[in-house]
Amino acid sequence: MKQLKAEIVAVGTELLLGQIANTNAQWLSQQLAQYGINVYNHAVVGDNLNRVEEAFLQAQNRSDIIIVTGGLGPTDDDLTREAFQQISKLEMVEHKATLDKIERYFKNHTSKMTPNNRKQARIFKGCTVLENNAGMAPGMKVELEGRVWFFLPGVPREMKRITTDEIVPFLRDLTGDEQMIKSLVLKFIGIGESTLEHELKDLIIAQSNPTIAPLAQDDGVVIRLTAKGASEKQLDELLGKTKEQILARVGGHYFGENDQTIEQVIVELLLKQNKKMAAAESLTGGMFTEKIISVSGASRVCSGGLVCYDTAIKRNILGVTEQTIQEKGTVSEACAYEMAEQIRIKFASQIGIGFTGVAGPDEMEGQPVGKVYIAISDKNGYKKVESFLFNGARSAVRKRACLKGLELLFNYLKS
Amino acid sequence: MKQLKAEIVAVGTELLLGQIANTNAQWLSQQLAQYGINVYNHAVVGDNLNRVEEAFLQAQNRSDIIIVTGGLGPTDDDLTREAFQQISKLEMVEHKATLDKIERYFKNHTSKMTPNNRKQARIFKGCTVLENNAGMAPGMKVELEGRVWFFLPGVPREMKRITTDEIVPFLRDLTGDEQMIKSLVLKFIGIGESTLEHELKDLIIAQSNPTIAPLAQDDGVVIRLTAKGASEKQLDELLGKTKEQILARVGGHYFGENDQTIEQVIVELLLKQNKKMAAAESLTGGMFTEKIISVSGASRVCSGGLVCYDTAIKRNILGVTEQTIQEKGTVSEACAYEMAEQIRIKFASQIGIGFTGVAGPDEMEGQPVGKVYIAISDKNGYKKVESFLFNGARSAVRKRACLKGLELLFNYLKS
Repeated sequence: MKQLKAEIVAVGTELLLGQIANTNAQWLSQQLAQYGINVYNHAVVGDNLNRVEEAFLQAQNRSDIIIVTGGLGPTDDDLTREAFQQISKLEMVEHKATLDKIERYFKNHTSKMTPNNRKQARIFKGCTVLENNAGMAPGMKVELEGRVWFFLPGVPREMKRITTDEIVPFLRDLTGDEQMIKSLVLKFIGIGESTLEHELKDLIIAQSNPTIAPLAQDDGVVIRLTAKGASEKQLDELLGKTKEQILARVGGHYFGENDQTIEQVIVELLLKQNKKMAAAESLTGGMFTEKIISVSGASRVCSGGLVCYDTAIKRNILGVTEQTIQEKGTVSEACAYEMAEQIRIKFASQIGIGFTGVAGPDEMEGQPVGKVYIAISDKNGYKKVESFLFNGARSAVRKRACLKGLELLFNYLKS
Repeated sequence: MKQLKAEIVAVGTELLLGQIANTNAQWLSQQLAQYGINVYNHAVVGDNLNRVEEAFLQAQNRSDIIIVTGGLGPTDDDLTREAFQQISKLEMVEHKATLDKIERYFKNHTSKMTPNNRKQARIFKGCTVLENNAGMAPGMKVELEGRVWFFLPGVPREMKRITTDEIVPFLRDLTGDEQMIKSLVLKFIGIGESTLEHELKDLIIAQSNPTIAPLAQDDGVVIRLTAKGASEKQLDELLGKTKEQILARVGGHYFGENDQTIEQVIVELLLKQNKKMAAAESLTGGMFTEKIISVSGASRVCSGGLVCYDTAIKRNILGVTEQTIQEKGTVSEACAYEMAEQIRIKFASQIGIGFTGVAGPDEMEGQPVGKVYIAISDKNGYKKVESFLFNGARSAVRKRACLKGLELLFNYLKS
């Protein structure tokens, strides 16, 4: 099969004003990827005839399959038809079945059909009409000088419905059985993108199927594997083998795949090990406990937590010793450890975790902004305290401390 | 002022595979719109040198301001620098300050700096370095044959930070005085978008300067006023007058403007009134306390909080009475109130707030998913308990409960 290039062109000024994100392009790209069709470009243009025409010309020059979303509605700023007419010189005709449908709609809703509604029934002569089972304006499939064009409404619900009903069968026929695509996302914590890539450099260079792409995200690094093959079985084998190679090198930082989050994995491990945890949080202010409790089923593994922002709370409610507070300070290894130990005991849990540090904006007890201590204590005498110096402002320091706590707890649970 | 054309080019195969939506382009478009700069195109290309180069050439030909996101990372598929070098023929040099920062980072984290990290310090000779206060790779501003190029990392947090710190001041200077645009966002809590619109319908229809656009957001409803005028003074007058008209009708739900969050306003009110608060959270699991503590300065008004997910914690640590637990249950008005009262007393605060309810997935004590009680108690004997039945799944119920708690506390503080 020839390697087809696809492109998605979105028409609509609301996208260029940032009123909405181009989630249509995202969804369509997922569909195309599933059938092994490479999307090489997304383009967004506003409701302006010249610029839409320019985008269409460019797509006609560089892509085999072009999907256009938006600009098919009844109002004057819906210009997709007009712009494509400019480049294709195709005649437009009124589609009887669509016009009937529009007239029926207005009759049923006993509202007056304004003349501009007829516009939605206008189609290119000789096109394939793609029925819209979720709205008024139909989609169209047009072939022009070896390129296949699909025109879809911009409303996501209608766009998706027509794609599923009418375009997906076309894609399935097009690609046949020869080429399927499948992605697997491997998720890592506690390792940077650059280190990960360094460790896997030769694999990344050598592999073409699956491709291996590392990507930094807010809560860690992921590696996306994308395989092409003739069957589900072949895809799974390709992905499985590469996953194995990768984990042989950096498996120590691996925690899950695809949509799994680190907090989900932690809750699963706690459930499996039949353990409960509790957290004492100073600078993280409840963020860590909130992460754990956000997972469905957390009630069985998290007894709760204490936000001990005040020194008085650390001492009076949690039971950090006066000696530690006076001699070591609240931003100290000793304090973090006592927090972890005390919360574990007071909250009748197997595991306690403690966070203390300086979120900023000001330094505290002579410690700089970003200095953080995290401790874990368990009922068998396990004791770990680590110190960190995080970059960034208040909110970044707090998030990083929380993420590091998740990493430490995950490492403790899997060891 | 010449009407400037801006374009946003996103580089990254993950966008073309539909793994993420191009929310960077959306956010940047909003920023540019605010300064009256027209965005005419969004383009997305994958991690492929030729195609990135092609997209850059096109942008250079048609746009005055080009913002590129992504492709600045340390790995081999980060090709933005290389592609721009092809079209600009600019020399690349190592930026000492960035390299120092990277080396310092790895030293502080006692992890090994792999050679590919040096790549992030490579900049175009003569460019303006845009400091990245949220990450490693700096942004760059480059002028090329009358066009202004901005290069930004693809990670949204870093992209936003550099834009706010370094690009917004540039845009502000650029648009000068002739036709100025100013927006004012009014923020509301405890009122729905449709009700708000209904109350303001005639104003919305009649006004063209400023325009009045209501918009539902995750944490309430906002109204964006956008005025055009010749001077700052004229803009402020236009905006001020319309604001006054709006608040005369729906001012009871108004809490702040622009970037102000409800939690910031609460912390300010607490500071002004010289009061401290503490929260006892069951189903919200720390989310409420976390919101308050996320505000800089919260340490002076929030003594802390208790996440009492377990009944045992409610009883043993917090001091909810056995009688209430046995006779009314933990999901009850009485329990919510005792939680609020006890946390206030135990945490030596003027105000206590308590959250209890059923987040789901399963019902509890015969109460349906979504049932939530929130109570406020103060040291002068003020006592308020309200019950709610929130729609939605676990995560929605928890967020709504937290938001409603913020609303109740705000209303208490301003009354």
